[in-house]
Amino acid sequence: MVKLLARGVGIVIVDKLIEQSKEEVIAWRRHLHKNPELSFQEEKTAQFVYDNLCKLKDLEVSRPTKTSVMARLFGDKPGKILALRADMDALSIQEETQLDFASQAPGIMHACGHDGHTAMLLGTAKILSQLRHQIKGEVRFIFQHAEELFPGGSREMIQAGVMENVDMILGFHLMSHIPVGKIGIVYGPAMAASDTFEATIQGKGGHASQPHLAVDPIVIGAQVVTNLQHIVSRKLDPMENLVVTVTTFHGGTANNVIPDTVSLCGSIRSFNKTIRQKAEQQIEKIIDGITKTHDAAYKIDYHYGYDAVSNDETMTKIVEETVEAVWGKQAVAKVPPLMGGEDFSFYLNKAPGCFIFVGTGNPDKGCDFPLHHPQFSLDEDSLAIGMKLSVHAALKLLD
Amino acid sequence: MVKLLARGVGIVIVDKLIEQSKEEVIAWRRHLHKNPELSFQEEKTAQFVYDNLCKLKDLEVSRPTKTSVMARLFGDKPGKILALRADMDALSIQEETQLDFASQAPGIMHACGHDGHTAMLLGTAKILSQLRHQIKGEVRFIFQHAEELFPGGSREMIQAGVMENVDMILGFHLMSHIPVGKIGIVYGPAMAASDTFEATIQGKGGHASQPHLAVDPIVIGAQVVTNLQHIVSRKLDPMENLVVTVTTFHGGTANNVIPDTVSLCGSIRSFNKTIRQKAEQQIEKIIDGITKTHDAAYKIDYHYGYDAVSNDETMTKIVEETVEAVWGKQAVAKVPPLMGGEDFSFYLNKAPGCFIFVGTGNPDKGCDFPLHHPQFSLDEDSLAIGMKLSVHAALKLLD
Amino acid sequence: MVKLLARGVGIVIVDKLIEQSKEEVIAWRRHLHKNPELSFQEEKTAQFVYDNLCKLKDLEVSRPTKTSVMARLFGDKPGKILALRADMDALSIQEETQLDFASQAPGIMHACGHDGHTAMLLGTAKILSQLRHQIKGEVRFIFQHAEELFPGGSREMIQAGVMENVDMILGFHLMSHIPVGKIGIVYGPAMAASDTFEATIQGKGGHASQPHLAVDPIVIGAQVVTNLQHIVSRKLDPMENLVVTVTTFHGGTANNVIPDTVSLCGSIRSFNKTIRQKAEQQIEKIIDGITKTHDAAYKIDYHYGYDAVSNDETMTKIVEETVEAVWGKQAVAKVPPLMGGEDFSFYLNKAPGCFIFVGTGNPDKGCDFPLHHPQFSLDEDSLAIGMKLSVHAALKLLD
Amino acid sequence: MVKLLARGVGIVIVDKLIEQSKEEVIAWRRHLHKNPELSFQEEKTAQFVYDNLCKLKDLEVSRPTKTSVMARLFGDKPGKILALRADMDALSIQEETQLDFASQAPGIMHACGHDGHTAMLLGTAKILSQLRHQIKGEVRFIFQHAEELFPGGSREMIQAGVMENVDMILGFHLMSHIPVGKIGIVYGPAMAASDTFEATIQGKGGHASQPHLAVDPIVIGAQVVTNLQHIVSRKLDPMENLVVTVTTFHGGTANNVIPDTVSLCGSIRSFNKTIRQKAEQQIEKIIDGITKTHDAAYKIDYHYGYDAVSNDETMTKIVEETVEAVWGKQAVAKVPPLMGGEDFSFYLNKAPGCFIFVGTGNPDKGCDFPLHHPQFSLDEDSLAIGMKLSVHAALKLLD
Repeated sequence: MVKLLARGVGIVIVDKLIEQSKEEVIAWRRHLHKNPELSFQEEKTAQFVYDNLCKLKDLEVSRPTKTSVMARLFGDKPGKILALRADMDALSIQEETQLDFASQAPGIMHACGHDGHTAMLLGTAKILSQLRHQIKGEVRFIFQHAEELFPGGSREMIQAGVMENVDMILGFHLMSHIPVGKIGIVYGPAMAASDTFEATIQGKGGHASQPHLAVDPIVIGAQVVTNLQHIVSRKLDPMENLVVTVTTFHGGTANNVIPDTVSLCGSIRSFNKTIRQKAEQQIEKIIDGITKTHDAAYKIDYHYGYDAVSNDETMTKIVEETVEAVWGKQAVAKVPPLMGGEDFSFYLNKAPGCFIFVGTGNPDKGCDFPLHHPQFSLDEDSLAIGMKLSVHAALKLLD
Repeated sequence: MVKLLARGVGIVIVDKLIEQSKEEVIAWRRHLHKNPELSFQEEKTAQFVYDNLCKLKDLEVSRPTKTSVMARLFGDKPGKILALRADMDALSIQEETQLDFASQAPGIMHACGHDGHTAMLLGTAKILSQLRHQIKGEVRFIFQHAEELFPGGSREMIQAGVMENVDMILGFHLMSHIPVGKIGIVYGPAMAASDTFEATIQGKGGHASQPHLAVDPIVIGAQVVTNLQHIVSRKLDPMENLVVTVTTFHGGTANNVIPDTVSLCGSIRSFNKTIRQKAEQQIEKIIDGITKTHDAAYKIDYHYGYDAVSNDETMTKIVEETVEAVWGKQAVAKVPPLMGGEDFSFYLNKAPGCFIFVGTGNPDKGCDFPLHHPQFSLDEDSLAIGMKLSVHAALKLLD
Repeated sequence: MVKLLARGVGIVIVDKLIEQSKEEVIAWRRHLHKNPELSFQEEKTAQFVYDNLCKLKDLEVSRPTKTSVMARLFGDKPGKILALRADMDALSIQEETQLDFASQAPGIMHACGHDGHTAMLLGTAKILSQLRHQIKGEVRFIFQHAEELFPGGSREMIQAGVMENVDMILGFHLMSHIPVGKIGIVYGPAMAASDTFEATIQGKGGHASQPHLAVDPIVIGAQVVTNLQHIVSRKLDPMENLVVTVTTFHGGTANNVIPDTVSLCGSIRSFNKTIRQKAEQQIEKIIDGITKTHDAAYKIDYHYGYDAVSNDETMTKIVEETVEAVWGKQAVAKVPPLMGGEDFSFYLNKAPGCFIFVGTGNPDKGCDFPLHHPQFSLDEDSLAIGMKLSVHAALKLLD
Repeated sequence: MVKLLARGVGIVIVDKLIEQSKEEVIAWRRHLHKNPELSFQEEKTAQFVYDNLCKLKDLEVSRPTKTSVMARLFGDKPGKILALRADMDALSIQEETQLDFASQAPGIMHACGHDGHTAMLLGTAKILSQLRHQIKGEVRFIFQHAEELFPGGSREMIQAGVMENVDMILGFHLMSHIPVGKIGIVYGPAMAASDTFEATIQGKGGHASQPHLAVDPIVIGAQVVTNLQHIVSRKLDPMENLVVTVTTFHGGTANNVIPDTVSLCGSIRSFNKTIRQKAEQQIEKIIDGITKTHDAAYKIDYHYGYDAVSNDETMTKIVEETVEAVWGKQAVAKVPPLMGGEDFSFYLNKAPGCFIFVGTGNPDKGCDFPLHHPQFSLDEDSLAIGMKLSVHAALKLLD
């Protein structure tokens, strides 16, 4: 039975197109996996993507920046503009898999699935270009560089204009903690904002036996850490989510000397702007207050990382319905937000969107290592699944 | 053998005089014990002392204030002026001894030995008046009211002029933690300055389930208490002595409500002015700093009690030598300073002095209850001992 | 246009029935409001409900407990059993409204809308009894006593068998923080579990100047409070929700005495069993660990209040769709869970259910005081709305 | 006028003898200064001392250990045995003075005055050997190695028998914080016991965003530091002295990772055994209690350094009287105890003694750098002063 997903495009048609391109997509992905490039250095990768896109008909292909690619597919009928985004960069990790197509670049590895993302989006572009007559409006393919390295490639691409007039955007991430065959759906906050601070508490060193002549930065640092706990336990709306972790505490070199300073680092995860800014203010307020209380001084450097990724409710519902329509309810995995950062967030400042988790976990194939692990690998069946969802969701969203 | 203590006055002579007045002194003490009067209300006590002093020859007796008495004894030869001080007031305690001469005033009791101090000083005046020809300079007897009640009687008496031209002062306190027969000697700080504070931490009440809308004064109060520990552990010269105790912490009335405020009281004991003032500053600084760090406000009332009593080294050495000369080395008890306050300290702003602890403890006679206990009682043998020391020390100091 | 909500029952029909009973429902509500009864004492209330139910045909009415009522309505066709629950008790509050029908019982007031809940459910029973032929299965009406007073009336009623064979249950609460006309929908956790503890820290009293001879329960209590903050800040999954508030801290009576004990009370709100139990364990572990660390002892009484109310996803979706079908999307208010407790939770141990918030807020009518306020009042328009939702949801759920 | 110090030996005689040997002592000291040797490596130093002692008549010279020397001088009359001790080792410091006789050993320097101590004791031996007929009993000269390096040379020498039958012992330390011409006298505790600990807090590492899956050793370490403050502020008799300082706190390497462990070091100074042992117990108890409270584990290594040096009251009084007799009262400097450690303490387990501070500070000669400073230097006038005190005190103590 041909189930209608979007006006005039049935599952059977898409399935056939995917079947035809499946092997090619896997081949692309393996090529990319074998030839990983670090963030902001994706020259060959971008060229590879560019060359393959140029082979497709009806696409307008361009290079927004040196290491990124954009392609525009205009449907036959007028309509909205939907962007689909893949990221292309690899990590500074020495691969430890035994794959035939393991990385040939020493110390560089596609350990976060971006090779898969890129191949899937290439495949999606190929299929959609064949369904061009069914498309209302435009599908814009964004092959982004440098997701892994702050400040991220998305800002550069946005500045280069890739989001101009875009109405909606979808992003996909292959996830090994979700079984292959399942699609992870999150309403609202999906990926945390991830910020950091580095602080120095300036006391006054002295001999361990004469604390009254010193300003002991270790006891002050300890009080800072303890008082920082109040931000989450007392100052946060208990229905909201926030993490404030002091990750390093260093002070002192000799067992009979009170040191001059203590240095602290911390990590902050949040899902909305108000909480994020309040956390920053409170961290500084507490460090300021506690150090002054005890006659010390401080310096703090507070760094905002990527913004939180927050999925649009309407779009997410359409994606969920698409998953249900294509594979049935059991394919939907309602998963909690992830605490990691994603520069997909910057696109969402320009248009509503949805960031979708595509399951690629499969212990039977050894595909259950976490992201960023030297033995991380994809169940390549997930590539066809991801493409199928991309195609159907794109058609439905533009319908 | 007549051991020389001061020019021309031997132990034997003094012993004889004490033997003669001993019973009378005990009688005086019992009379006073039976008729205790509260601080600033010692009218009958003062009259009793005045009347008895007037019976002695060669004394110039006066009433510096309504409830105090002063007597001046001028020696035959010119010399310095030594003051001897006794305090006369009783406490708001219901006596629980079985003594024949137990208090007849309900709820009032001489539970701090001031009856003994007064009787001893009367006896000392009697004996010294008989030794008038041996005395160089003046002995001034100060019978003080209101030692037990802040701001104390000593300040009033000083204002009334009792310390004019005084060169030295001795004070005596009967102590049940020192065995009768021993004299407690302390060089330097002997009694602590005893200060207090009352603070209110002003948070903002709210529902227990919504801490983010409240400013929780209980967690802030807890941090204040914890941070106050640093004053003694980190900010005090470890060779100095200081106590900072938070004695009360009250906040909250319902188990589902964050209260508006928390109230704290504290007690501070110190032995020197610098430490005392630093403690006050640091307590306020910490309460100020911690409350502000957590968005609360505070009020603090800080009360200075009596100053610390610090014994003059030279005078204390003379007292110690006197004890050794009269009873031998074993009579000297080197005791640590006491943490209680004494308004004897105000005299020491006018002249150097020594505050001496006269042992009156004797378990065999049931005389081992602590000061201020409803069963506190004196071993009356200590009265003769105290007088003997007073007389010899006075003669020696003026010599 | 007659929109189909459930097989054969249109909005128009229900509207007509509601229109007919509206005034009567308001009259019932006013009668109840005027005659409030406290928890476990709802004798007249229960009799009133019982009498009115008995007037309806086809209902099997019974009295599960002395102050509660149950009625069973059997549809013509076989099907599932849906329970609808209203609570009937009032609060110990002196009413301060100027209503004609204000409480005539001094110090007792329907300040939590239970008068409205009861009247609405009576009205719903009347309407559904008229739609009996459309009903598949059974609707069971539970008029519960004693929701406001732990351990709550629901446990007694369940023990009396009211939930036997029940497949689904709906509860309704009028809410003044939600505007009249809106229905508050919550997926999953809707009302928190609300637990409390009372703890005593047993130190050892002493004089403020001799901390080393005492075990100071105030500094230990302060450390307990501070360490308890770690439960939420460090030991809780940041995606979960929990509140741990110390609401009272009492110790000490005199400013120069270290007290023997400190007493603490606390309030804990949670939404799932694992978190709830972990919180209890960690609170006790921290109090145990900190007191032992500092040579003190402790006692703790930990009281579980009502469980959390967690709405069934499928049923909630049906309720939401019903609201959309009856009033349109704009009538749905997605609201956060409430931190208050509800003994509706005990029914959910027996069958899945949904607890629905019916808006009754209306500043124009002075209906914007919070629950439990002496001036709290309902916008009575909400009664018809609540009935309409009850009827449609019941029909749809049983369909 | 020849003032009598001890039976038959006047100041004039001693002065003459000192005058005669003064230059030689300075020469010895300069030789030693130029040729410093590290602890346990004092081979040439010991040989130099041995050779010079052998030149003196009536001394019985021996080598208790490879790098130490002992000499015994027997008086003509029977009596007690008094030991005099000097330490001989240098420090791992690169000398930065401009002295002609600056250290020729790179990175090794007599920066703690031990060159002076050794020369003074050699000079004292020379003088006393000339006064042999006046001496009752024995003077035993202990030239000790390795004071600077734990476990110290004194224990080895005691094991070799140098304290056999010794009745009293004196030690001398040149001190630049005391002006030349003054002798620093301390009754009772003179040098602190100096202990250390190293502790590891074993938590469980994890991602900064998932504190609930980790056991965060940084917040636990902070609580340990804060709770350790209670030892001094609450558990110590306020009349006693103790320092507990956490000198190092290290944990964490990355800003997004909760580390596995935190390591702490601490320094503890105390003056009596009970306090010392209680401090150790309480430190371990607090680390144990706090880590367990928060599900962590710990390891602690607690190291006892040198014991406290506590001066015998009677001997100290004799030394003080000697100083007064030789130079007058103004030469006595009552100084507070020092917090540094000294292995002189181990001799005091065998016999009562007194550790005397000989002033060598003189800003006019640039002799005001603290001990262990690369520019530390002695005012060599202090050598004659030290010898004079040694000789007179020895004669008086044996008299």
